[in-house]
Amino acid sequence: MSSQIRGVVPPLAIPLKNGELDVASLERHINRMIGAGLNGLFVSGSTGEVAFSTSERRQQIQREVVRIVDGRVPLLVGVIDTETERVIENIKAVEEIGGALGVVATAPFYALGGQAEIEKHFRILKENTNLELWAYDIPVCVHTKLQNDLVLRLGKEGILDGVKDSSGDDVGFRWLSRANEAAGHPLQLLTGHEVVVDGAYMSGADGSVPGLANVDPDGYVRQWQAFERGDWEAVRAEQDRLADLMRIVLVKGVQGFGAGVGAFKTALQLLGVFDSNEMPRPVAALEGDNVEHVASVLREAGLLS
Amino acid sequence: MSSQIRGVVPPLAIPLKNGELDVASLERHINRMIGAGLNGLFVSGSTGEVAFSTSERRQQIQREVVRIVDGRVPLLVGVIDTETERVIENIKAVEEIGGALGVVATAPFYALGGQAEIEKHFRILKENTNLELWAYDIPVCVHTKLQNDLVLRLGKEGILDGVKDSSGDDVGFRWLSRANEAAGHPLQLLTGHEVVVDGAYMSGADGSVPGLANVDPDGYVRQWQAFERGDWEAVRAEQDRLADLMRIVLVKGVQGFGAGVGAFKTALQLLGVFDSNEMPRPVAALEGDNVEHVASVLREAGLLS
Amino acid sequence: MSSQIRGVVPPLAIPLKNGELDVASLERHINRMIGAGLNGLFVSGSTGEVAFSTSERRQQIQREVVRIVDGRVPLLVGVIDTETERVIENIKAVEEIGGALGVVATAPFYALGGQAEIEKHFRILKENTNLELWAYDIPVCVHTKLQNDLVLRLGKEGILDGVKDSSGDDVGFRWLSRANEAAGHPLQLLTGHEVVVDGAYMSGADGSVPGLANVDPDGYVRQWQAFERGDWEAVRAEQDRLADLMRIVLVKGVQGFGAGVGAFKTALQLLGVFDSNEMPRPVAALEGDNVEHVASVLREAGLLS
Amino acid sequence: MSSQIRGVVPPLAIPLKNGELDVASLERHINRMIGAGLNGLFVSGSTGEVAFSTSERRQQIQREVVRIVDGRVPLLVGVIDTETERVIENIKAVEEIGGALGVVATAPFYALGGQAEIEKHFRILKENTNLELWAYDIPVCVHTKLQNDLVLRLGKEGILDGVKDSSGDDVGFRWLSRANEAAGHPLQLLTGHEVVVDGAYMSGADGSVPGLANVDPDGYVRQWQAFERGDWEAVRAEQDRLADLMRIVLVKGVQGFGAGVGAFKTALQLLGVFDSNEMPRPVAALEGDNVEHVASVLREAGLLS
Repeated sequence: MSSQIRGVVPPLAIPLKNGELDVASLERHINRMIGAGLNGLFVSGSTGEVAFSTSERRQQIQREVVRIVDGRVPLLVGVIDTETERVIENIKAVEEIGGALGVVATAPFYALGGQAEIEKHFRILKENTNLELWAYDIPVCVHTKLQNDLVLRLGKEGILDGVKDSSGDDVGFRWLSRANEAAGHPLQLLTGHEVVVDGAYMSGADGSVPGLANVDPDGYVRQWQAFERGDWEAVRAEQDRLADLMRIVLVKGVQGFGAGVGAFKTALQLLGVFDSNEMPRPVAALEGDNVEHVASVLREAGLLS
Repeated sequence: MSSQIRGVVPPLAIPLKNGELDVASLERHINRMIGAGLNGLFVSGSTGEVAFSTSERRQQIQREVVRIVDGRVPLLVGVIDTETERVIENIKAVEEIGGALGVVATAPFYALGGQAEIEKHFRILKENTNLELWAYDIPVCVHTKLQNDLVLRLGKEGILDGVKDSSGDDVGFRWLSRANEAAGHPLQLLTGHEVVVDGAYMSGADGSVPGLANVDPDGYVRQWQAFERGDWEAVRAEQDRLADLMRIVLVKGVQGFGAGVGAFKTALQLLGVFDSNEMPRPVAALEGDNVEHVASVLREAGLLS
Repeated sequence: MSSQIRGVVPPLAIPLKNGELDVASLERHINRMIGAGLNGLFVSGSTGEVAFSTSERRQQIQREVVRIVDGRVPLLVGVIDTETERVIENIKAVEEIGGALGVVATAPFYALGGQAEIEKHFRILKENTNLELWAYDIPVCVHTKLQNDLVLRLGKEGILDGVKDSSGDDVGFRWLSRANEAAGHPLQLLTGHEVVVDGAYMSGADGSVPGLANVDPDGYVRQWQAFERGDWEAVRAEQDRLADLMRIVLVKGVQGFGAGVGAFKTALQLLGVFDSNEMPRPVAALEGDNVEHVASVLREAGLLS
Repeated sequence: MSSQIRGVVPPLAIPLKNGELDVASLERHINRMIGAGLNGLFVSGSTGEVAFSTSERRQQIQREVVRIVDGRVPLLVGVIDTETERVIENIKAVEEIGGALGVVATAPFYALGGQAEIEKHFRILKENTNLELWAYDIPVCVHTKLQNDLVLRLGKEGILDGVKDSSGDDVGFRWLSRANEAAGHPLQLLTGHEVVVDGAYMSGADGSVPGLANVDPDGYVRQWQAFERGDWEAVRAEQDRLADLMRIVLVKGVQGFGAGVGAFKTALQLLGVFDSNEMPRPVAALEGDNVEHVASVLREAGLLS
């Protein structure tokens, strides 16, 4: 009934060169991640610079990803936009290109509203697509928390197929997971918090969407496999290692997207996967001491010699 | 040096019918407002449902407004979007249609960043247009406050021509106004807070962008004229009346955009200007007791018999 | 019916020396302010370091202020504390010392609650005192906004005598003022926003509680007198001057109370009123360039030669 | 080097009768909890209505708890207050009564400040006590997050002995735990999030401070014992059960302290431990359907027949 997607489903980081999509780097990147054994990819998420990409760029990215992935893993594609009509337009574009198992939408943002508008929003989206519909709970970006009652109701009715939780509300997530179990698991629940995936697995998550898996896909895959065989000590030890690695984002003088995705791209450049750590305008690429910081954490983790 | 735009420049509310732009109502609405003597129009602002409109709809609105206004008052057009490249695309569309004196952009939103990205954002936008560039300070929607130092620096360098302040920070606005005076008034400063325009005029505002002027343009025009001739008691008395009228937005069970713009559209329908109080999806139009509430406030104000 | 208190009622800044109350400086300070013609004093407000003072210190301050003022102006005394029983204890101490016209209490803070608890809180407080009871609306400190409906209802019932508004919500203040007028003015409304007192007077404020009046009481008294005689241009010009003077708080590397009250005390020391700009622990006194900044703004204002 | 306190250390809920401390119920309650095998008690925490208690009440509670516990488990006592001098006064009272291993203080609150004041605050507190000093990280109440760097530095210097984390920031907690390990474990780290204690144990917590352990101490003790023997499946299963039990707080029309502690007290009354579910003023006790809701969750959990 619920989505087949479970396990490690990273949000794809996007290589740029002179403002253009760097297709060669993207190809190396995707092949490296699929080679590590991950279970799916989330294209045009927050990490995948959806907010920075024009419609044309989003479509170009989807087209190239679909071509490169070539059916090896299922794809979720972000259709994130301020309000319903704009999201529907994005859904239509995703469907036209093809190759996606589902689309991922947030609560409306920019304009102020309440849970009634959010509910109607997802209902209208579902009327406009046959793809899986996933809710992306990311209050730090959209400034509204999806209520557990709401997403569960939409799950039971078949409006929503899953939730990507980046809410930072681990208490709410535990309750959602318990209620989802009690209802027969209508929703797939993925956590976006790459530093505490072990806790999310304890809470009943069906998988994770870790931005850091762009840098170290092997770690998250090993952790998922340990979870699958019930080896909690291995789940925890892997998480400790990945929490240490995540310190790449603790750069100086930069915050938010520029720090987080900036560090991922810089690590990928240092690892020889991306040709450049270029960021979408108006964000500056990391440089100087911040690059050295990323390199130093990678070396401590044994990922860079 | 700075923009010619001053006085009352309302953000245009948009009439809909069955999800389509209701051009006949729009024509009545614009002619009524220009007839009242306002000094300009702000198209595709927050009130003008910019977040709900597809690119095509935004362009349709601009085209119709330009045609109807026919040069009688200057136009500012909102190019609001999440990040730089998307805003540039909107600017290009505005330029292609023509008829705008300036474009209005917010700080980037959705992705998290800092003042450095905001500054670079506006600089890049200015490199991409010859129109006036206005900053829209609206933290309640974009969740970042534009810093006074930043907008003033951009004003002095000719990057920004004006600021529409909807920040709710009247202390900051006073300081911005004082610093702007000290610098030779490089920026035009308009307030978006229709309930306390008199205080903003005391603080040095060059005009106002009152959503409520969609309903009662005459009041705001009279207030501006009183201000121009230094009759502060009349400025204040008019504001008291308009503050009372603004109670149309205090509806029950609805919040944010649905309450505010919902009440404006409902009032316009009751006044015979709009054919419908329809709202863009997923927002519901006001109904029942809430419509009666709007009518009752209009009657108390003597606008409805 | 409502309180006699109106006009300029500054929150008294407190001089310290080696951690003790500096009574000699306090005497100079109060006499200077009363000499300027202000209309009352607010003792143990946020500026009056109520949160930093033990019960004993609060009582010592009240005792000395009552002695020095000697009935020349009415006194409001802050009884600010986390929850009801603690506030009642403070009220009892204020009554025992005597000399106060009213007490000033905030919404409960620290523990999380809702408007029901706030309403009950003020009702219980009123049952425990015959002094005037004022509500202090300061969400930046207590993280709850007092709702207009609530304070107005409590005003009409005679529970509350007045409101000191430091909410930063000038739209809400205008509506409160309008509703208060419509109800026969049961509440005295004072604004705490010293940078935009002119706007608050336009909105119907009965006076102000400007922290900056510790530094320049003459300015706020002149402004009030201009307001009383309907000379709005003078009200505005005085405010412009005071807004410029308020830039003393724009110091570097310090924020909040340390910047604001720190600048007031530093200015008072520079003006020869306070012997020291010492701050209550754990806050550091301004020093070095920050003192020079305060001096420079005072010189620009012509207050320091 | 670091504190001996680890394991389950519940924040003691307080029984009231007619506004007075109900000593008989308190005795039953403490004996039941110690009988369950918990590892310590936290007196006068947020759950222990510290914000609602006068100094005298706080002292009465400590005196009775010390008498009843009689050395069977170690005690931490909250000295929570707005600023440094007031907290020192509370510390002196705790020391005078005796029987406490450590005191627990939050960051300063009410007045606005920064990390510099927080650091100085804890340093001054440590100069004023020989008891263990614990930091209570509870931004939802004090509206400042303790920075990891700060608490770790204070831990290494011997200023702080431990941290009670109620920050809701599980990513930050993981990083703090990792850094604390790397520094030789100067701090004991306890989590206050009773719904996800299993995740906190994965993250390296040395124990928990679960308010819900007032209701079901056995569950948290069993969970701790399972953790100590490395049985993660049992840790997780117990947590699932406790997460379900925590739904007692999901009452209607009440929020925050009134809902959470209100539900704990109501459960304790239903279980025959407390004579009353009375709450401190101005908070109302749960009643009607909300009591029935608590009973129904207790029955589902098999705690009530």
